[in-house]
Amino acid sequence: MAVIDINADLGEGFGVWELGDDLALLEVITSANVACGFHAGDPSIMRRVCAAAVERGVTIGAQVSYRDLAGFGRREIDVPAPELTAEVLYQLAALDGLARVEGGRVAYVKPHGALYNRVVRDTVQAGAVAEAVREYDPSLPLLTLADSALRGVADGLTVVTECFADRAYTPSGRLVSRREQGAVIHDRDTVARRAVQMATQGTVRAVDGGEVVLNARSMCVHGDTPGAVDLARSVRSALTEAGVVLESFA
Amino acid sequence: MAVIDINADLGEGFGVWELGDDLALLEVITSANVACGFHAGDPSIMRRVCAAAVERGVTIGAQVSYRDLAGFGRREIDVPAPELTAEVLYQLAALDGLARVEGGRVAYVKPHGALYNRVVRDTVQAGAVAEAVREYDPSLPLLTLADSALRGVADGLTVVTECFADRAYTPSGRLVSRREQGAVIHDRDTVARRAVQMATQGTVRAVDGGEVVLNARSMCVHGDTPGAVDLARSVRSALTEAGVVLESFA
Amino acid sequence: MAVIDINADLGEGFGVWELGDDLALLEVITSANVACGFHAGDPSIMRRVCAAAVERGVTIGAQVSYRDLAGFGRREIDVPAPELTAEVLYQLAALDGLARVEGGRVAYVKPHGALYNRVVRDTVQAGAVAEAVREYDPSLPLLTLADSALRGVADGLTVVTECFADRAYTPSGRLVSRREQGAVIHDRDTVARRAVQMATQGTVRAVDGGEVVLNARSMCVHGDTPGAVDLARSVRSALTEAGVVLESFA
Amino acid sequence: MAVIDINADLGEGFGVWELGDDLALLEVITSANVACGFHAGDPSIMRRVCAAAVERGVTIGAQVSYRDLAGFGRREIDVPAPELTAEVLYQLAALDGLARVEGGRVAYVKPHGALYNRVVRDTVQAGAVAEAVREYDPSLPLLTLADSALRGVADGLTVVTECFADRAYTPSGRLVSRREQGAVIHDRDTVARRAVQMATQGTVRAVDGGEVVLNARSMCVHGDTPGAVDLARSVRSALTEAGVVLESFA
Repeated sequence: MAVIDINADLGEGFGVWELGDDLALLEVITSANVACGFHAGDPSIMRRVCAAAVERGVTIGAQVSYRDLAGFGRREIDVPAPELTAEVLYQLAALDGLARVEGGRVAYVKPHGALYNRVVRDTVQAGAVAEAVREYDPSLPLLTLADSALRGVADGLTVVTECFADRAYTPSGRLVSRREQGAVIHDRDTVARRAVQMATQGTVRAVDGGEVVLNARSMCVHGDTPGAVDLARSVRSALTEAGVVLESFA
Repeated sequence: MAVIDINADLGEGFGVWELGDDLALLEVITSANVACGFHAGDPSIMRRVCAAAVERGVTIGAQVSYRDLAGFGRREIDVPAPELTAEVLYQLAALDGLARVEGGRVAYVKPHGALYNRVVRDTVQAGAVAEAVREYDPSLPLLTLADSALRGVADGLTVVTECFADRAYTPSGRLVSRREQGAVIHDRDTVARRAVQMATQGTVRAVDGGEVVLNARSMCVHGDTPGAVDLARSVRSALTEAGVVLESFA
Repeated sequence: MAVIDINADLGEGFGVWELGDDLALLEVITSANVACGFHAGDPSIMRRVCAAAVERGVTIGAQVSYRDLAGFGRREIDVPAPELTAEVLYQLAALDGLARVEGGRVAYVKPHGALYNRVVRDTVQAGAVAEAVREYDPSLPLLTLADSALRGVADGLTVVTECFADRAYTPSGRLVSRREQGAVIHDRDTVARRAVQMATQGTVRAVDGGEVVLNARSMCVHGDTPGAVDLARSVRSALTEAGVVLESFA
Repeated sequence: MAVIDINADLGEGFGVWELGDDLALLEVITSANVACGFHAGDPSIMRRVCAAAVERGVTIGAQVSYRDLAGFGRREIDVPAPELTAEVLYQLAALDGLARVEGGRVAYVKPHGALYNRVVRDTVQAGAVAEAVREYDPSLPLLTLADSALRGVADGLTVVTECFADRAYTPSGRLVSRREQGAVIHDRDTVARRAVQMATQGTVRAVDGGEVVLNARSMCVHGDTPGAVDLARSVRSALTEAGVVLESFA
């Protein structure tokens, strides 16, 4: 029986500023990547999101990031490894504390934005993130792409593969860059069909028409726009109708 | 036999900026109030200070603050109570995480700067700080003045009194405001003598010449200047020579 | 012939975060209070808003604030006066530079949020703000309430009174605190009628039923919600229909 | 007659944190690269440094940086070009405003830290910085290395070459990376001799023993440590004794 997790970024407001519809997403997902204050998310927001996630039985993950509120963590920063490890530990522990007072706990780690992309190809920063998780709690899984440098430096850690139903894949299983045409798939039925194939077959049709094996245990959806939430809902419906069990990996 | 703790603020640099001589102070004190990133202290500094404190058997406390790097936490901010509670939880948990990976843990909480002064007289913000400690770990003592609003709102928590050997006291046991002349005592022998009286008799001579009972279990020293470290050293020597046992309260 | 200015806060996003509908408001107002980066507004947003204001002939004002992104400048901070003067100068000059490269310039100053409320009653901080304007360009008018401490410390400066069509007034011409019931008026027709009375008679009906003289040269409208923009539009229509000339005071 | 400028970074504290000895350096240099608040420097510090520079007839330059207090602007950040242009404009205008109220003005621009290194080799970010200067005031010179990508994108601007008496040079006139041994020269006499050669001959002896032409109009000195200030003083003495005229390029 096919089992998959649905994850999304939550708690990405800051102060008066809001982003995305957290409550709507919490009805769709099984894992919430909660921002930890470095690219978004202040302590009050973090606490509120943790409370809402615990209430709905949604698993909480730490969405750790570069320190970059102005750039929403989307710009790569050349942070030396020991500093990055300390920054990830700080975020991870802060969120864990807020989750615990709400009756939950951090159950996995997913780097955000530019850090997410960086650890896919840079073993130094990937190693720094892995080191933080190893030191804090080596039982926490790390979410990353199928083809990621993080795997090579995650000795003793659990690495979980995630997939994106609305993104085009290269024949080698990487995401097509957003700068290229067709990188993001908007048609709802196509996205839903791909989601089901990913969950039930563990594969995806690449841009050259061939099948690529992903074997992803988690699927990422977005929620920044009303359209995105609708898309996420239809992915969830399609998966459920196909008999896929939705369950956190953590 | 008289027992007292000596505490000081540590880890108050940020990025390239340094403040005070942490390593020198760690030889003097029994409790380190470690900055948590809101008024000073970045994750790398926090981690380094925790490692050094653990190595020397110095107890680690969370020096929680308003979010105010530009003002070093010295300016009062009208933060609503629930937000302040979340901010204290965030700082507390972040430091605790870094302390734990270094083999220690946060063992008490001391508000910093303007927040320290505010909780002495404002039951709302005092209650917000107490609430954070209660939720995070009610066994963590809170350090404050003998005469402090924090006491009235700390139900179920341990409140520990601290004293200042180099500060003048009013007849009612409050600190004379720094704006008044004679508020800070600079003469080394006088400060050492007052320290010994505080530790052995539990009292201090107030500005009107009368004795005030403080019964402080901890004594705060400073370390921002070379002179301050020397003063702290002579306080420690005087206490030791007087047979006072130096021991953390936590 | 009655003349009045309509002002509103613009450029109050930060990074990816948006707030309010700047383009819609620019069709309603004659003066834009542009956030300067301390409570909201990053350089890219500031530049974009200035360009859009210049294009539409809307006057640009500097909405200076406490340094408080996390609190959106809504929390009072005890900033010492010389520091506050320097911070206001910094914001004022930064916005002026961005306005100038877009063909405009800063033509007035309006403190934001908690600083707005503070300068109404605290002559020290009011004096610090006035001092910044005096040093930067004493020809820049300052926007404040009819009854404001800023007036007493603004020697050599122009102080312009603003009014709020959707706020209840006390018999002495102050705003009723938002904490009291009825402080904000939501009925569109009532608001429009009050706007016209303010512009044509220079008065407002206070909560006790009496008339208060305001003689405001500018009227503040809000735009954070779709409803707010609609309300602003109907205020503008009512003023225009009543033959009021809409014109910046600067 | 040989003429050269001596420049150094000033105003690099933040809040309570200090860095370097600004007043000592102001006696040595002819141009002050003043931090603008993004990597260091708050409005009060900026104002104080400008006042001190004006008093001593030292020229003021804007030391613009990435937005990175935590990393002191030493970490490269992938800021998109239009955003970088707006950020440079913001810093430039803010400092110019503070300089003007103290009777001075910004007379040149020098990127700081990682941005300095980036514009030497990245035409996109170099172009973004040049664009800001072009828009703000095209008469402001830009300080950079002899061999810098900034030159190729500075159409209509003045680019001024600076040299470093205490740094080793490659045969092609680039700085030897700090990661390599011998990159920084510590011997005071050697540094002074190199300074005189740079100022009087316009050349430097490279690591391979050959002479490289630099024709630098400005020479950078450092002041973060007491040793650095002494070194700067002896560079100045050596230049003066060799009959070199010390004069700002701006």
